[in-house]
Amino acid sequence: MLCVQECFISAPGKSILHGEHAVVHGKVALAVSLNLRTYLWLQVTSSSEVSISLPNIDTFLCWNTSVLKPLLSHCTGVGECRSSTELDTELVRKLREFTAVSDGSTDTRSMAVLAFLYTYLCVFSQSEILPGLKVCVWSELPTGAGLGSSAAYSVCVSAALLTARETIRSPLTQSQETARWSDEELELINNWAFQGETIIHGNPSGVDNAVGTWGGFLRYHAGKITPLNRVPTLRILLTNTKVPRSTKLLVSRVKDRITQYPSVLIPVLESVDAVSHICERTLAEMATEGASAKHYSTLEDLIDINQQHLNVMGVGHTSLNTLCQVTLAHGLHSKLTGAGGGGCAITLLTPETEEHVVRDVIEELKQIGFDCWETSIGALGVLMHSPTSVPHNILQILTKY
Amino acid sequence: MLCVQECFISAPGKSILHGEHAVVHGKVALAVSLNLRTYLWLQVTSSSEVSISLPNIDTFLCWNTSVLKPLLSHCTGVGECRSSTELDTELVRKLREFTAVSDGSTDTRSMAVLAFLYTYLCVFSQSEILPGLKVCVWSELPTGAGLGSSAAYSVCVSAALLTARETIRSPLTQSQETARWSDEELELINNWAFQGETIIHGNPSGVDNAVGTWGGFLRYHAGKITPLNRVPTLRILLTNTKVPRSTKLLVSRVKDRITQYPSVLIPVLESVDAVSHICERTLAEMATEGASAKHYSTLEDLIDINQQHLNVMGVGHTSLNTLCQVTLAHGLHSKLTGAGGGGCAITLLTPETEEHVVRDVIEELKQIGFDCWETSIGALGVLMHSPTSVPHNILQILTKY
Repeated sequence: MLCVQECFISAPGKSILHGEHAVVHGKVALAVSLNLRTYLWLQVTSSSEVSISLPNIDTFLCWNTSVLKPLLSHCTGVGECRSSTELDTELVRKLREFTAVSDGSTDTRSMAVLAFLYTYLCVFSQSEILPGLKVCVWSELPTGAGLGSSAAYSVCVSAALLTARETIRSPLTQSQETARWSDEELELINNWAFQGETIIHGNPSGVDNAVGTWGGFLRYHAGKITPLNRVPTLRILLTNTKVPRSTKLLVSRVKDRITQYPSVLIPVLESVDAVSHICERTLAEMATEGASAKHYSTLEDLIDINQQHLNVMGVGHTSLNTLCQVTLAHGLHSKLTGAGGGGCAITLLTPETEEHVVRDVIEELKQIGFDCWETSIGALGVLMHSPTSVPHNILQILTKY
Repeated sequence: MLCVQECFISAPGKSILHGEHAVVHGKVALAVSLNLRTYLWLQVTSSSEVSISLPNIDTFLCWNTSVLKPLLSHCTGVGECRSSTELDTELVRKLREFTAVSDGSTDTRSMAVLAFLYTYLCVFSQSEILPGLKVCVWSELPTGAGLGSSAAYSVCVSAALLTARETIRSPLTQSQETARWSDEELELINNWAFQGETIIHGNPSGVDNAVGTWGGFLRYHAGKITPLNRVPTLRILLTNTKVPRSTKLLVSRVKDRITQYPSVLIPVLESVDAVSHICERTLAEMATEGASAKHYSTLEDLIDINQQHLNVMGVGHTSLNTLCQVTLAHGLHSKLTGAGGGGCAITLLTPETEEHVVRDVIEELKQIGFDCWETSIGALGVLMHSPTSVPHNILQILTKY
């Protein structure tokens, strides 16, 4: 029985505040939620059709449930699927066949569709019928920019389908604008989102879906993900230099540098580790004592220091130098976030940063050719929304398809 | 008896290739000779006048030897003076009185005159008469830019006066363009130059006069100065941003940073130390195996890395960022040299750097408002010149006064 007739869900993107690259070499990384969100609208329909609309990537597909049902036939252990983090690789193989996605293919559209169908089938595998659904997803996040857009998508899909299936309850009461699930339910959403991420990325760290689910700040160290308690939300600019880069290539560049100059680079990794620890301590202080100018000054110092260290690791780029110089001319501090070599950067705004400064900086960065958003880090993870709490422009897009 | 009737002498400036600031915290620094030279012309005259002309700093003074002689009267232990590195503070006090330089004063002109008179009197203290001399000094080095201009001056003065006194021999034979003294004689020049530096600076490290004397590359660690054997000469651009800065303030800024973020900064100092060691090894390889593109690439990497580290230490400056960006746009790598916070920077030129690139970069840097010289590091220390081996424009200046 399906009680949820429709729901709006959002999940944040992800950014690395400190420790990118160093994390590959055993150091701490601080991953944070990025309040550029992915929104999903799910409607349960009386039809026997399942449709997914992904206007960001120009993907609109629809299947009759009768052609989807047979895909479940092989699935013997589906009962366990519901809380498992292990991928049903046989189902993935069948879905690849079904959607005519060749084995090696990893294009964004195909992967998004595979992840959706996989989650849909697994979540409803024990259901009497496969329900008719209409799902539309729109994201504020650019794709392929290392901002966790696929994880935000997977988190939204998991939360929506698990709620529709009533595996988890619908947390929103009449009077609420937004609501969250219990920790146990979030754990389930996160596990399913991880499976989606595994389909999309092959071998994800689990950090992106954890950030999309829990929000806030997460410490990631040696494969272990720990959400930080009591953290502030920080205003930032998120800039995409749009300089294309390969994460794999950049990771191997850092490795080569360490091999070439171990005595120079190993202390730098230690220093980055210390930056992450001081940042973590400072964030905790800000949340417990209240944020002071001194806290912001420390965060700015750490951003500047880490940006220099990332240059030393060989993942800087002239576009990033330009960005840092432009923002610093206005008294704002920036660092690359994620892989580097172009890509994205974050610029910290403080309570003292005046609005006209923010406007001027955004204008200058856009004139250079960068994309730039004023947003925040450390915001809430996956949310259920009342329709009125979905930003108007996004509601228009979601309900258009 | 005076045999030398005149001589031309030059000594190089100094630059720090790696390890500035780190050296204050127990790490290695590599000091190098900078082939922007200070030239001195000394003439022995039959008059009873001693004159010194320092056209760079608009200083032209002349004394009768009869008024100088009484200054020596107190000097009981003058016999030892000749090879001592310890300052005769009583003579310095008398000279301050004589030249009406107040106790606290440290202005460039007064200090240059004090150092000259002190060396003159000590060197000739055992001589039958104080000889009449004409000395003129002209430097290619800007003063007060941390490029060892005072040390180059002290080295020239010491070498010239010791040669005139025949404490050391005149090394130049008829057929030679330039010539150097023996190691023992250079040691003596260096010791006297150190006394000059002590008069000018109060508490010098001894690195600047050692570089002016020995030339090449010197390793400086925990107060110990070691000239490196067999080193190459490297072409560079030396740029003066002309942004004024206080070395004392910058040294204390680094200290404060270490106190504020010890876990971040201590590894950075270690990394800088490693940079100096790799640089030293690379220079040795270049001298013994012959310089390859790989060697230059390593030197470039080390320059970039150290520039980032100096930024982390808090001694960067926007003028230096601009400089690095301008040179990098032409494929050339730069770092600040010395105290930072503005001041000077070196840009490495390689055998592959084309002349038009060098011209363009110099032009661009000058247009920003910087001074810029094409020169070299690692060149010879103090030299005696035949008149024909003194650059024509400098010969004109020296013989004009």
